[in-house]
Amino acid sequence: MTASEPGEPAGLWLVGARGSVATTAVTGLLALKAGIIEPTGCVSAQVPFDQAHLAGWDDWRVGGHDVVPTPLAKRAEQLAEAGVIQYRVLEAVREPLAEVETQLCDGYQPATHRGSQADAVQRMATDIAEFAERHALARVVVVNVASTEPEFPVLPEHGTVAALDAAITEPGRVALPPSSVSAYAALRAGCSYVDFTPSTGIRLPALQQLAAQRKLPYAGSDGKTGETLVRSALAPMFTSRALTVRSWAGTNLLGGGDGRTLADSDHAGSKLASKTRGLAALLGGEVTAPLHIDDVPDLGERKTAWDHVSFEGFLGAKMSLQFTWTGYDSALAAPLVLDLARFTAAAHDAGQSGPLGALAFFFKDPLGADDHRLAEQFVALRDWATSL
Amino acid sequence: MTASEPGEPAGLWLVGARGSVATTAVTGLLALKAGIIEPTGCVSAQVPFDQAHLAGWDDWRVGGHDVVPTPLAKRAEQLAEAGVIQYRVLEAVREPLAEVETQLCDGYQPATHRGSQADAVQRMATDIAEFAERHALARVVVVNVASTEPEFPVLPEHGTVAALDAAITEPGRVALPPSSVSAYAALRAGCSYVDFTPSTGIRLPALQQLAAQRKLPYAGSDGKTGETLVRSALAPMFTSRALTVRSWAGTNLLGGGDGRTLADSDHAGSKLASKTRGLAALLGGEVTAPLHIDDVPDLGERKTAWDHVSFEGFLGAKMSLQFTWTGYDSALAAPLVLDLARFTAAAHDAGQSGPLGALAFFFKDPLGADDHRLAEQFVALRDWATSL
Amino acid sequence: MTASEPGEPAGLWLVGARGSVATTAVTGLLALKAGIIEPTGCVSAQVPFDQAHLAGWDDWRVGGHDVVPTPLAKRAEQLAEAGVIQYRVLEAVREPLAEVETQLCDGYQPATHRGSQADAVQRMATDIAEFAERHALARVVVVNVASTEPEFPVLPEHGTVAALDAAITEPGRVALPPSSVSAYAALRAGCSYVDFTPSTGIRLPALQQLAAQRKLPYAGSDGKTGETLVRSALAPMFTSRALTVRSWAGTNLLGGGDGRTLADSDHAGSKLASKTRGLAALLGGEVTAPLHIDDVPDLGERKTAWDHVSFEGFLGAKMSLQFTWTGYDSALAAPLVLDLARFTAAAHDAGQSGPLGALAFFFKDPLGADDHRLAEQFVALRDWATSL
Amino acid sequence: MTASEPGEPAGLWLVGARGSVATTAVTGLLALKAGIIEPTGCVSAQVPFDQAHLAGWDDWRVGGHDVVPTPLAKRAEQLAEAGVIQYRVLEAVREPLAEVETQLCDGYQPATHRGSQADAVQRMATDIAEFAERHALARVVVVNVASTEPEFPVLPEHGTVAALDAAITEPGRVALPPSSVSAYAALRAGCSYVDFTPSTGIRLPALQQLAAQRKLPYAGSDGKTGETLVRSALAPMFTSRALTVRSWAGTNLLGGGDGRTLADSDHAGSKLASKTRGLAALLGGEVTAPLHIDDVPDLGERKTAWDHVSFEGFLGAKMSLQFTWTGYDSALAAPLVLDLARFTAAAHDAGQSGPLGALAFFFKDPLGADDHRLAEQFVALRDWATSL
Repeated sequence: MTASEPGEPAGLWLVGARGSVATTAVTGLLALKAGIIEPTGCVSAQVPFDQAHLAGWDDWRVGGHDVVPTPLAKRAEQLAEAGVIQYRVLEAVREPLAEVETQLCDGYQPATHRGSQADAVQRMATDIAEFAERHALARVVVVNVASTEPEFPVLPEHGTVAALDAAITEPGRVALPPSSVSAYAALRAGCSYVDFTPSTGIRLPALQQLAAQRKLPYAGSDGKTGETLVRSALAPMFTSRALTVRSWAGTNLLGGGDGRTLADSDHAGSKLASKTRGLAALLGGEVTAPLHIDDVPDLGERKTAWDHVSFEGFLGAKMSLQFTWTGYDSALAAPLVLDLARFTAAAHDAGQSGPLGALAFFFKDPLGADDHRLAEQFVALRDWATSL
Repeated sequence: MTASEPGEPAGLWLVGARGSVATTAVTGLLALKAGIIEPTGCVSAQVPFDQAHLAGWDDWRVGGHDVVPTPLAKRAEQLAEAGVIQYRVLEAVREPLAEVETQLCDGYQPATHRGSQADAVQRMATDIAEFAERHALARVVVVNVASTEPEFPVLPEHGTVAALDAAITEPGRVALPPSSVSAYAALRAGCSYVDFTPSTGIRLPALQQLAAQRKLPYAGSDGKTGETLVRSALAPMFTSRALTVRSWAGTNLLGGGDGRTLADSDHAGSKLASKTRGLAALLGGEVTAPLHIDDVPDLGERKTAWDHVSFEGFLGAKMSLQFTWTGYDSALAAPLVLDLARFTAAAHDAGQSGPLGALAFFFKDPLGADDHRLAEQFVALRDWATSL
Repeated sequence: MTASEPGEPAGLWLVGARGSVATTAVTGLLALKAGIIEPTGCVSAQVPFDQAHLAGWDDWRVGGHDVVPTPLAKRAEQLAEAGVIQYRVLEAVREPLAEVETQLCDGYQPATHRGSQADAVQRMATDIAEFAERHALARVVVVNVASTEPEFPVLPEHGTVAALDAAITEPGRVALPPSSVSAYAALRAGCSYVDFTPSTGIRLPALQQLAAQRKLPYAGSDGKTGETLVRSALAPMFTSRALTVRSWAGTNLLGGGDGRTLADSDHAGSKLASKTRGLAALLGGEVTAPLHIDDVPDLGERKTAWDHVSFEGFLGAKMSLQFTWTGYDSALAAPLVLDLARFTAAAHDAGQSGPLGALAFFFKDPLGADDHRLAEQFVALRDWATSL
Repeated sequence: MTASEPGEPAGLWLVGARGSVATTAVTGLLALKAGIIEPTGCVSAQVPFDQAHLAGWDDWRVGGHDVVPTPLAKRAEQLAEAGVIQYRVLEAVREPLAEVETQLCDGYQPATHRGSQADAVQRMATDIAEFAERHALARVVVVNVASTEPEFPVLPEHGTVAALDAAITEPGRVALPPSSVSAYAALRAGCSYVDFTPSTGIRLPALQQLAAQRKLPYAGSDGKTGETLVRSALAPMFTSRALTVRSWAGTNLLGGGDGRTLADSDHAGSKLASKTRGLAALLGGEVTAPLHIDDVPDLGERKTAWDHVSFEGFLGAKMSLQFTWTGYDSALAAPLVLDLARFTAAAHDAGQSGPLGALAFFFKDPLGADDHRLAEQFVALRDWATSL
């Protein structure tokens, strides 16, 4: 592929393309193309990013992998019923949505997959390459928005490309979680990669080595869309004011599939860990920070988080702050998926490779950056994006 | 006065020296000198300000004006009963507190004052000058922490020093609110001036002209200690994420004298106005923002604020954030009074004059600065303070 | 009219028939008739009221007055867009909704009315009587769900039927607010009357005298659907536990027309007064109880209330409870309108007249009852209804 | 013992006599005797219970068991520092507190106990009997306020007195948890028994059989002092209004020893179970109800609970209520301990035996009663107490 200019088509390949976040992102992109919604929630559409060298809404083509067969249109209807998508928008994008449907391929599923994981990587890379060829795409950004996986054990084979290649070539051997199979396929297809989930994805030495070899940029991980977003705005308030946070407790109530997946302790492990790491980094040390994720199906697509912060001030005064955040998870995540695609494609165009720390603003557990403070992350993003 | 070096004595002159904030600030300063508390809540005591050229705790001498006769010791006992000051601290500072008591003078009170306002200015300037002389102080910072005044009408005489001097020379004529009489006295005595309240204080063209003539720095106004502090941390989260805030409602429950003063609409006027200006500046435009201050005496020294933010995200999704802040007003304000004294004295030493915009971090309605975003204000403060 | 049997048609005449509450009540009633929704929120549909002698959903015919011309179907669409009514329900009731539309008459509007108020009463009574005749209705219950009026001055003419009749006969004289004109018309037409708003309505000695003469029952006032409902459940908790409530602050954020009407202090007067009376009655005395109603248009049909209760326990311990209630005003009020119609018609059938204190369960400011405690009100309702 | 008359001395024997709740109860009782506090939070001191036949504050003598050696005075000082007890009260009761100290005996501790559990029962029964004799007490009520135990396995030996006696006679055999050893000792000494904790205590068939044989009354279990108290007031609001609760999530943040004990899943088991049983009973069926107890040491004696209720109304409208309760656990529990002693002694006097269902008002998991609705429980208590 050669460097693209604004106006050249760009590809967005979604892993988990039939999920809530992906469906909302695609519906929204189509509505933006149709000019029937404002880009509310799209960071890249506002000043000063509107002056950056980013592909326009019209430039994007969408494809993806998923393991479930529910058609996008059906999923979009469910999201309309749940209040995430307005009916007028749904009606307006039915046709282009059906077109995107034709670009979706079967995802990788260990339980049903025949052959080695190397075969899976190969097949998926081919899917992506064919999509790129079909649409004459200069760039494809692969974004993982699939369900969060259970934590996967660390294996010695993850250490180098060679060791990994040897391991995944063995038939029946499961040396990678699905998210990493997808990440591998993305790199194999010469694509940049974004992990919007806390799953392992590209976070293995072997894959990062491969990205470096191929000069591919990547970003992640775990989109910051609710409680952690607010934390990254509030925690610096306490530290900059020299107020000592003594405890920061959090409870997350999630409906939908997300609640089901994350309330299960195996799957929640990586999520809880990334949230807690961020808080300690923000506060400059460990604090008492109990954290819960509960499955509350009747909330549907909504999620509610309650945080209680107790802190100490002058002369030992004990004080508290609590907040309740209520939002639609998919509506919060979807515009960031579009932002990440635009920024990552632009980085690729600009010849950047490796972890894009400047995109930390979007993530709970940023790759390539240490600062979790939201305002500082925004400054870093702005400076980086406007200099591309 | 000549430029002071760290180690030289510096003066803090408090207008409203017997109030809750002043008493807490003085008690805390004495406890810091005694080494029996940590400087929690003191911005200037933490990295990187600990490396700036600021007067140390031991360098400070305190005096002040007040119109009420309650001794500091009595007020400190009330604050101990209310949970703001620990009994062990109170006991430890009784002696130095009695010493500060000897440095307090009668404040200016229109109802009982005989003679012209010029006389009052003169008398108060002399009080401050004598305090400075008594302690051989290189610098005195005058900080207004008196009760918020009712809004004072704008008069043509406020326009120039000459016009103002003519007006306040007339016996019995009330051309200035008490806060501005104090500010004038501060300038007359060659002192820098900080307004921690939303009262008029130095915010008159004539007084700012005088400060410029005398090359005196000043800062204000209206200390940011609760609801507005949180707003200035949270509002940029919404704007940087391109989320549209549709309404931001607030209710403040205040006990103590503050509640009594501010729930009265005349006195609240300036407070409500400064809060609302800040929010509009933060969000880049007007939003529906009903705001209430209620007097709830049983809360004592505590204050509680509830804010409800409704915002719109991608595809028009309606979401909300609410927070409840519960704190001790005096414990939040007092360390900032000490910080402001240290920073303002250092600015004076460094030859700076006029409004100190770099101190916007501390104020609801900053003089000399437009940015209300907390993180940006902190960066500005840090850069300024470390270059002094 | 003669006593009706369950199965005989009954009439519900809505004053403010095109408003949100009325439209939701009618849509819901039609959906209940169609068997496509459950009677969630309908007190009268659950055990043990399902055994009481109440008219069934199918028995009800609906008509009403309103001063605005927006068709019911249009209003229902707006409510669907606002999330109150599901689209599938809206579609299912379009036809019967159009039928109800034909039963609506112009309301009384002082600004445009020609002739005396007596003429208005006469005309409106005739509207109701014709509706009753058209449908061969044994009973008609008139329910006021119009916008809350500004407080109306107390006049000597309100004291007796004779004095009132003399006053309203004078052409151009405005001796009654619109709500009382409607109440008068209801009584004149031999109907029972329910006031779901805090407007004056039937609460004039002359009208209550008339109801007594005509042996008509009536109920009111001001439907208890949110903050006050929660208060009436929580306040008895404190009193029965001997915990002393020291303050109870409340803030109400309302969207839609309700917010516009009530945030204006004139209209809010009666609402705020009835809320405060209830709280004092519940707590056995006055407490600090600041209360606000704010107009927040972007909330649409939703309302949010935040209450902060500070209370004292054993050994003077200071503690607090706060709650946030978020609901759809119309969805909360509408089923109660249906309940009140059923209970009031049954009371009329049973020969009861005067204020129906047993319906206090439904009201902020109950007529004919002193107890504001929700649980006790429910017991009173149950005992009364099951003995009808 | 013979029936006591008001005015005769009565005994309160506290199991866990050196804990926060016991120390607060004893300090408060002594302050009530001294007439220096109001009986705020004491249900039995208010109308109409002030007319019931209950022992007066002056009539009570206090003793107890505990396994920790911290003197009461020391514990009371810690509670003063934590804000539960005012210093002026502490000073005023120092002398009588030291007197109570002399009445405390060592508790039963499996780890250090030599001999059989029957020996322990015997020794503890003797402690209580000697206390009763020393003070010529007509009645002694034993109240368990010790730390919550881990759940104890159900054994066949718990089925009858005979089987239990055989089991506990075996040296070294641990057939009963400590709470049940205490309960057995209470019954053996002819005392009534109250379980303020969720530990097993008297809830074994054998012990209830013994109480019946000896005609002794008992009450329990698990004092209702915070989140569950609010739930029992709020849940009936939803059911009586026919609103369908879809989920009720709760998070409890506890400081002090309570947090440490209960955040551990073994000990929390019984607490969580009793809370959940109550909610299902209140709502008439199971709902999604995730519940957490977190240890947050910096909260000290305070506890904070956040509950989020999502419910459905008319036409399927989705709405929510959330509340935050912040209180001092010991200040909430202590007056109920005194109430329970007074009511239980009166029941014993009146010849009642077995579970006192009328005291359900005080408990999360009431013995002898099914109704969890607070208002109904209060009516039952009132009717019962005033007829004693």
